[in-house]
Amino acid sequence: MTKPTPLSGFPEFLPSQRIVEQEVIDRLRTVFELHGFAGIETRAAEPMAELLRKGEIDKEVYVVRRLHAEPATATDSVSRDALGLHYDLTVPFARYVLENSGKLDFPFRRYQIQKAWRGERPQEGRFREFTQADIDIVGAGELAFHYDVEVATVMATALSKLSELQIPPMRLLVNNRKLLEGFYLGLGASDPHAVMRVVDKLDKAPAAVIATMLQTDAGLDAGQAATCLALAAISTADAGFVEQVRALGVENELLDTGLAELAAVMTALADLDAPNVSVTADLRIARGLDYYTGTVFETLMTGFEHLGSICSGGRYDALADDGRNVYPGVGISLGVSRILVPLLSRGLLEASRNVPSAVFVAVVSDETRAVSETIARALRARGIATEVAPAASKYGKQIRFAQRRGIPFVWFPPSGTDDPTGAAAPGHQVRDIRSGEQVDAEPGTWSPPAADLRPSVTAQP
Amino acid sequence: MTKPTPLSGFPEFLPSQRIVEQEVIDRLRTVFELHGFAGIETRAAEPMAELLRKGEIDKEVYVVRRLHAEPATATDSVSRDALGLHYDLTVPFARYVLENSGKLDFPFRRYQIQKAWRGERPQEGRFREFTQADIDIVGAGELAFHYDVEVATVMATALSKLSELQIPPMRLLVNNRKLLEGFYLGLGASDPHAVMRVVDKLDKAPAAVIATMLQTDAGLDAGQAATCLALAAISTADAGFVEQVRALGVENELLDTGLAELAAVMTALADLDAPNVSVTADLRIARGLDYYTGTVFETLMTGFEHLGSICSGGRYDALADDGRNVYPGVGISLGVSRILVPLLSRGLLEASRNVPSAVFVAVVSDETRAVSETIARALRARGIATEVAPAASKYGKQIRFAQRRGIPFVWFPPSGTDDPTGAAAPGHQVRDIRSGEQVDAEPGTWSPPAADLRPSVTAQP
Repeated sequence: MTKPTPLSGFPEFLPSQRIVEQEVIDRLRTVFELHGFAGIETRAAEPMAELLRKGEIDKEVYVVRRLHAEPATATDSVSRDALGLHYDLTVPFARYVLENSGKLDFPFRRYQIQKAWRGERPQEGRFREFTQADIDIVGAGELAFHYDVEVATVMATALSKLSELQIPPMRLLVNNRKLLEGFYLGLGASDPHAVMRVVDKLDKAPAAVIATMLQTDAGLDAGQAATCLALAAISTADAGFVEQVRALGVENELLDTGLAELAAVMTALADLDAPNVSVTADLRIARGLDYYTGTVFETLMTGFEHLGSICSGGRYDALADDGRNVYPGVGISLGVSRILVPLLSRGLLEASRNVPSAVFVAVVSDETRAVSETIARALRARGIATEVAPAASKYGKQIRFAQRRGIPFVWFPPSGTDDPTGAAAPGHQVRDIRSGEQVDAEPGTWSPPAADLRPSVTAQP
Repeated sequence: MTKPTPLSGFPEFLPSQRIVEQEVIDRLRTVFELHGFAGIETRAAEPMAELLRKGEIDKEVYVVRRLHAEPATATDSVSRDALGLHYDLTVPFARYVLENSGKLDFPFRRYQIQKAWRGERPQEGRFREFTQADIDIVGAGELAFHYDVEVATVMATALSKLSELQIPPMRLLVNNRKLLEGFYLGLGASDPHAVMRVVDKLDKAPAAVIATMLQTDAGLDAGQAATCLALAAISTADAGFVEQVRALGVENELLDTGLAELAAVMTALADLDAPNVSVTADLRIARGLDYYTGTVFETLMTGFEHLGSICSGGRYDALADDGRNVYPGVGISLGVSRILVPLLSRGLLEASRNVPSAVFVAVVSDETRAVSETIARALRARGIATEVAPAASKYGKQIRFAQRRGIPFVWFPPSGTDDPTGAAAPGHQVRDIRSGEQVDAEPGTWSPPAADLRPSVTAQP
């Protein structure tokens, strides 16, 4: 076998990098569970018919089929009965809700941390295989607005917990589609969605071009186009946006609802203690996907704005529909890989060691390996991750073995032989190999400092 | 959308079942990390050339390709450049070791808990998508025998931890390929692997048929065949097998090594405190796969022996080979889905509730929802998973909402209105909805009993 090379778009982590990713996932899970979200996993494959429902992304789906499938199936692998890998966690969740609707209690709040696959061209922050962390709350028939507020506060809390791991500060941008649609209707637009689609391009084209497109593509006059751009320019850190929108002089009932909803989300987020997460009501945010109907979210990571939104979502009036019930929902999806791969590949985040072990037990002689194993077992019984030296080589070599892995403590078993002068042989000793300090210790009672018990995550300048 | 139906071979769990699976995975991870194993994940897809290396299972591979791949690639999807989903975690691990050999420290101990896919016909315990938990220790150039003992004790410890979750007792069966090969050579067999392949069929055919096959297919005479069957019948709970093998009168150096290795594994496992895991030296176990070269393991779950081995592995002298180095390894793979799907689908294991929440905070009125949210935040800050009622409906309805989810405690905020007689309004109260007991409480100090903090797993009769 020749040395294999990485597959573009399928990032993999070294053990020390995986420690960082696992810590991120653990923290997200803790926050989600503290808020009562139940974890689920869905299968990786869905029928192509489900995956192609939203036609716009069909190019990105990976089709899967058995290598030795019957010929009829093999040539027919793009049929709608074929299977494909899911490209997000929303489509499988909608299917899961319908399939199990009789066994779930609504409103159903779930989190889901899994991989997804898209066949798109790999680039920084966009991968063919990537990990997402989604939270959604879904109702049967109806879902109160306060869940929009809850989903926003849960994800803001989660993002804030990540900042304890030295992940850069986040900027959560919030808007409301009712606000936009009501405003455009109040302004006299005949096709508010057409207006939204054009305004959504503000990231990619200058305002003057957008103003022209609003007239040519969305049927507005120059004054209406200017007012739309004025709305999109509003961005406030609190509920101050309400007054600025009112000053534009547009009246509409749906606009009123949207303003009230967005103000409620902003007020709740302002009350939240979420260090390193700033929140902005940004009236330019629309989210391209047509199914959002109320609150919408995007998130930028400071210094990595070029990645685009790393955490997005919103309210949709029909996550799923089985003919008897419509299932409205609100959710946000965090791009774990989109955040971590750029940070880890640049070496900006690092684990303090590349193994879980806090203690490395030296071996005095190959005959007394069992003594070292017994020490290790006593430490593990008290929750201290421990490994035993591979061989009874010279202590210097054993210590270097621990050092290469970043293991902070080396344990020396009693040598077993009394000093020739008649002094008693030294007992158990443990050395902090960073400071060189070495002390007497007993396997049944000694513990490392809490900070050394597990690998920690540190930012690299 | 009509109601979707499950895909055969792709098991999915309801939230309460997923709680059990997550608890199993958490416990496995804890044991593996306590022993210094580093967690890694590998990508789901590997080049088909890698996956087809061991020709015997090629029918089971799922090929993946982009739906809109260029036509040349599309028709060529079975080419060896194409990608397939991994069917185990060993092949991707071997590739990972070669790809990152310069960045890993050897001996490298890793655990890997991930899904794998096989296109085989679904049946109980065998799925098209399933979760495996693997541990392996791999060396560069060499790997000491004591790692065979370590891998066995780590997995036995892990299996024992699962029995705390009411998973049935396990029977770990151990053998050694050197013992078998040396015995057959000492007996005069010209092709010991042919003998092994025939003896491996003892599960499927009666001893008399195997005796005949040993003569027709493996070139033994009737006496040699009988001695092979006598060896295969040896099964002891300790190192007693050594004497029984010696009594068969076969002499061979490789046999001596195999006997010593197996005795060492048995002795170490006997010393281990692993409740509900019994260990047997079973000289019939050979493991079909040709790459095992020393210790081999299989595991049966009591009452579910028909599932076959739920945890298997062994020593292989060449996990990988990059031309410069050979990488020997020893590892065991636990079939998480193979254990859990039968137990969960029969309702034999259950979580005490189907949400993480320990506390459900009632809402007095829609206007005072924020009061309930503040209580919830105070509880969460102390690690108590809490959710807030969906609406200010009558308390009876709110309590039933909590009951349906199995949430043990309902929190009643102060009603806020003084009694008309002039008595002070009651303050915070919390009710155990199982016993009905209701007490005064403060959100900043009250905690549920430790046993109620997280969902627990219970066996159903």
